[in-house]
Amino acid sequence: MVGNSKRVEHYGGTETTTNITIFSSEAEYLDAMSQPPPPPPEVHKVCLPPSRTTFQKLVQRLSEIFFPDAPLDRFKNQTWFRKLVLGLQFFFPIFVWAPNYNLKLLQSDVVSGLTIASLAIPQGISYAKLANLPPIVGLYSSFVPPLIYSVLGSSRHLAVGPVSIASLVMGTMLSEEVSYTDQPILYLQLAFTATFFAGVFQAALGLLRLGFVIDFLSKATLVGFMAGAAIIVSLQQLKGLLGIVHFTTKMQIVPVLTSVFERTDEWSWQTIAMGASFLLILLTARKVSMRNKKLFWVSAAAPLTSVILSTLIVFLLKSKLPMVKTIGHLPKGLNPPSSNMLYFHGSYLGLAMKTGIVTGILSLTEGIAVGRTFASLRNYQVDGNQEMMAIGFMNMAGSCSSCYVTTGSFSRSAVNYNAGAQTVVSNVIMSTTVLITLLFLMPLFHYTPNVILGAIIITAVIGLIDYEAALKLWKVDKLDFITCLCSFFGVLFISVPLGLAIAVGVSVFKILLHVTRPNTAALGNIPGTHIYQSLRRYREALRVPSFLIVAVEAPIYFANSTYLQERMLRWIREEQEWISANNESTLKCVILDMTAVTAIDTSGVDTICEVGKMLQKQSLQFVLANPAGNVMEKLHNSNVLDSFGVNGMYLSVSEAVDDISSTWKSQP
Amino acid sequence: MVGNSKRVEHYGGTETTTNITIFSSEAEYLDAMSQPPPPPPEVHKVCLPPSRTTFQKLVQRLSEIFFPDAPLDRFKNQTWFRKLVLGLQFFFPIFVWAPNYNLKLLQSDVVSGLTIASLAIPQGISYAKLANLPPIVGLYSSFVPPLIYSVLGSSRHLAVGPVSIASLVMGTMLSEEVSYTDQPILYLQLAFTATFFAGVFQAALGLLRLGFVIDFLSKATLVGFMAGAAIIVSLQQLKGLLGIVHFTTKMQIVPVLTSVFERTDEWSWQTIAMGASFLLILLTARKVSMRNKKLFWVSAAAPLTSVILSTLIVFLLKSKLPMVKTIGHLPKGLNPPSSNMLYFHGSYLGLAMKTGIVTGILSLTEGIAVGRTFASLRNYQVDGNQEMMAIGFMNMAGSCSSCYVTTGSFSRSAVNYNAGAQTVVSNVIMSTTVLITLLFLMPLFHYTPNVILGAIIITAVIGLIDYEAALKLWKVDKLDFITCLCSFFGVLFISVPLGLAIAVGVSVFKILLHVTRPNTAALGNIPGTHIYQSLRRYREALRVPSFLIVAVEAPIYFANSTYLQERMLRWIREEQEWISANNESTLKCVILDMTAVTAIDTSGVDTICEVGKMLQKQSLQFVLANPAGNVMEKLHNSNVLDSFGVNGMYLSVSEAVDDISSTWKSQP
Repeated sequence: MVGNSKRVEHYGGTETTTNITIFSSEAEYLDAMSQPPPPPPEVHKVCLPPSRTTFQKLVQRLSEIFFPDAPLDRFKNQTWFRKLVLGLQFFFPIFVWAPNYNLKLLQSDVVSGLTIASLAIPQGISYAKLANLPPIVGLYSSFVPPLIYSVLGSSRHLAVGPVSIASLVMGTMLSEEVSYTDQPILYLQLAFTATFFAGVFQAALGLLRLGFVIDFLSKATLVGFMAGAAIIVSLQQLKGLLGIVHFTTKMQIVPVLTSVFERTDEWSWQTIAMGASFLLILLTARKVSMRNKKLFWVSAAAPLTSVILSTLIVFLLKSKLPMVKTIGHLPKGLNPPSSNMLYFHGSYLGLAMKTGIVTGILSLTEGIAVGRTFASLRNYQVDGNQEMMAIGFMNMAGSCSSCYVTTGSFSRSAVNYNAGAQTVVSNVIMSTTVLITLLFLMPLFHYTPNVILGAIIITAVIGLIDYEAALKLWKVDKLDFITCLCSFFGVLFISVPLGLAIAVGVSVFKILLHVTRPNTAALGNIPGTHIYQSLRRYREALRVPSFLIVAVEAPIYFANSTYLQERMLRWIREEQEWISANNESTLKCVILDMTAVTAIDTSGVDTICEVGKMLQKQSLQFVLANPAGNVMEKLHNSNVLDSFGVNGMYLSVSEAVDDISSTWKSQP
Repeated sequence: MVGNSKRVEHYGGTETTTNITIFSSEAEYLDAMSQPPPPPPEVHKVCLPPSRTTFQKLVQRLSEIFFPDAPLDRFKNQTWFRKLVLGLQFFFPIFVWAPNYNLKLLQSDVVSGLTIASLAIPQGISYAKLANLPPIVGLYSSFVPPLIYSVLGSSRHLAVGPVSIASLVMGTMLSEEVSYTDQPILYLQLAFTATFFAGVFQAALGLLRLGFVIDFLSKATLVGFMAGAAIIVSLQQLKGLLGIVHFTTKMQIVPVLTSVFERTDEWSWQTIAMGASFLLILLTARKVSMRNKKLFWVSAAAPLTSVILSTLIVFLLKSKLPMVKTIGHLPKGLNPPSSNMLYFHGSYLGLAMKTGIVTGILSLTEGIAVGRTFASLRNYQVDGNQEMMAIGFMNMAGSCSSCYVTTGSFSRSAVNYNAGAQTVVSNVIMSTTVLITLLFLMPLFHYTPNVILGAIIITAVIGLIDYEAALKLWKVDKLDFITCLCSFFGVLFISVPLGLAIAVGVSVFKILLHVTRPNTAALGNIPGTHIYQSLRRYREALRVPSFLIVAVEAPIYFANSTYLQERMLRWIREEQEWISANNESTLKCVILDMTAVTAIDTSGVDTICEVGKMLQKQSLQFVLANPAGNVMEKLHNSNVLDSFGVNGMYLSVSEAVDDISSTWKSQP
């Protein structure tokens, strides 16, 4: 408390002077004595954070980056056996719920499991076609991955299987370089390899605890991306719905619409009529379920019902409906192993890796977002890194058993939740149902028309167009809305991965823009308090005469140090102009409120130094208020503190103002 | 002040209750009366910033981005004529100083102009060779650009001409694709075209007021880059210094050193002896000038003296020194026009543009940094955007008059400053000297040995290796030091532009890392004050019973919203564990100190909402303290405020604690 003691000395000096003053009258003397100098305002020293070695700082920093949830905390002070159990539970969440599993839970899980199976079978076939894969691969993918997830996953409501976005992206990216009609085996190999890489990438993110990578897909980006993808997916279904044979292989809106209207001669009215009527049925069912959450089973049962109905119609009228294309022969039997089809060499390896990483990120984002949504509804936690590992291992296993990329599907998970699922056993039930289908019911799909798959897909993806969320973005944050538009139009007109990249770029640019041009404000005192607030925002705040208090609302970095230096000098210039225009008392002290300066780098330190020097030349006092711990540390390390001295730092603006003005008063 | 009035009503209610209590004795009654309920703590309402339309916000935002220095302010309230004069002065700073120019200033400028000319002539020739251009181009570039700068530039001490870094980068980038020995005309065309694009790019940055782009080259990046480039440049000089004929065209350290030691048979001892002795002289002169700033003329005069001396030696001993290579014939005469050599089509256009942009950015960074350094020494302002336009126009004009990229050189500007330059007239004097050299003295350079040019370059660039700055980076900011190392090794081992790109990437990553994993802290009260500070940092700070006060030290963005949500919940969990371990009073209220939350986006708003909901489920009160203006606006727009109500927002942590605890006390 050097500053404080120095000031006390000063007051002592003043008192001595008073004693030797000769007063003209006793009354005057008494008067002077009855007004003792005001007590020195209490000043608290700004202290450095507890000193730590570079290694300690590094450890703390790394643990904040990689272990923000402190996963090892729960192992503290536990017995050896308990630690083993906790460890097992950590890696296999099945051990958390399995011991308490009972018949009542099973009952709920059977009902929900059967419900999602009725949705998973038609959707599996449809999404496989979206990825340009044989329909049977969609069913395979609804069998193995859910079983693996039920052992490793920590969400209780996630319904695992193929999803529309990842299917679309895989289909787009692979078919840009390899034709699925000319080279079906290579295409299939690449799809499995991409799935393998997606799994490796996902598991690696989880193992290396780099889960924050997916945070860079902001909500705004996803709203735009999903809407764009939904439109792209729906447009692709025009092929099936209109019965067009020669359709473009491109995905963007312009070539697809051109292709649709150039091929009007291929439109088949039977197909259109069938597609339109089933689409109508499905959309109505969706509407009914949305209106009344209890009727969720209407939209859940509609796809399978439509498949059965349309298959019956085609089977009965097959001679009269030659134009309506059907799925055709599907092989009976379980998933064949596909590890021999993984492709680790040759010219398409890069394509497979790229596709794997993009679909991997997208499916992770969807799976984790869905898991978190339902976890927060039921008030339990889903660990992001653990989910990544579960989804990753599930895809790695999937790629060796003829499955393509799978994750938690939003629509099916919602149905699962509404149907009363209690644990991941509902996924096991679904798997079993798919198993029975694969073993015995495959021939029944022979006459299922392709058009119905298109209708099912459109109904599933239409919910991804969330215009209400986009409106909210516009209302709350215009820049977020622009990000959303970029990703929407990027996906529609350029390409799916590029649209995504543009949106991520815009999001990052937004952060950098905020860092480059941070807010600064002149503060005033709110009368009767120790609070200093922006003069512009609080009408009741008052300027403190002879002081200029500037708050910088961002870390001071290389990216904004030049700007902040200029801006601070402009604040001072404007204040001086204002003072001379209004004949106020001259400016004597500039206080920099550093409360919101949460970090600083070497350029920032130089800026503080530079501003200090410039103000010194103008004979202005320059003090800092409330520098944060790490900022203080860096100021200290760079010896800037030497030029400020202990008196140049205050714990709050209020103490700075009180102390400095009392120093002025005691210096006549 | 709804919150306040509500609380006053509440107190009124308590008082009524007191009145009807039956007291056992009069003394007890009086006792109760003498302790009136404490006055309600004063609570200030958190207000929204003054409401503005989206358009107004956009205008304000854009003006902060592009016009942070408010360049139009000076035109306010001026007469029509004065406005014209100010406008002319703005675009042509020559009008600022020319009217007051006098003989005394001219005297200083002539001395400093002649001094820098003696440095500019040998350096010009040397740097042109560094860029693989004919030596004469270096002299041309020291003639036209300084004249243009003297009309447009706002720095008084900048010595304009070719510089080492930009020369090196241009040489590297162009010779990677075009050989300067096989296609000298194409190479020259590309160099002029790159200069033209550099000028266009620089002027465009200035005109569009995008000067902050160069701020992304942080000091840390530049320290590493300069040191790496200095080593690369010095290694290139081994060709001349050792007299090697067959030298690699690559720039990286490994191939250059390999090439040097593979060609030991080409080493020429006469060349080595001459080079070593002159290098020693030049380095000694440099050392002398560095020890004593007044002897600056020693290092300023040394290069020209060495050139004259070595030329004489070679001329006199030419029969005995056949191995020493000389510059050879140089054409007499002024800069020939080169606008017909600009190359705006064909396959190398991309290369020329890329080279132009990279050299343009680098030379801008150097020029502006140098200008600012000397301006701050003499306490005048250099306008970054205006400098960009000046340097840009100078390079555009240069590209049409056989000049390559020029900017303000650090070494020559320092000499200029020390020699007493007062205005840009010293550049005009230098130009004139170069003009005389070009017209009459060119044949004198015929016998100047190449080895002396190498020695001059090494002496000039050795000062760029600033190990003290690197040490300071290590001391102050470890991450800055890593950035510096990345750019250093990137330049040495990969390539100059890629090394730069890596360093910029690392800098941006540093910003993103800080945003992704911001600091959070639990606060406590510093006794006897209204100040709340980190419990970890301030030992004297005390926990407030039943409260948990968490400060978030960053904007809440999509990139950190998940992390912050988990981290806040962990703070609460840890607090509850601590409480139960220490038998403290139970946690009732969580205060989120948002002072340092300077911005928020839609994901951040959702996080606040989500945390609020979770705490509600745990029956914990959740309030926000001191949300910034734009944060408040977004919370308001997204209707989050409805769930908090007016009572959930406080202007400071201190008011929140006082008010909430008084509410508890009055609710028995």
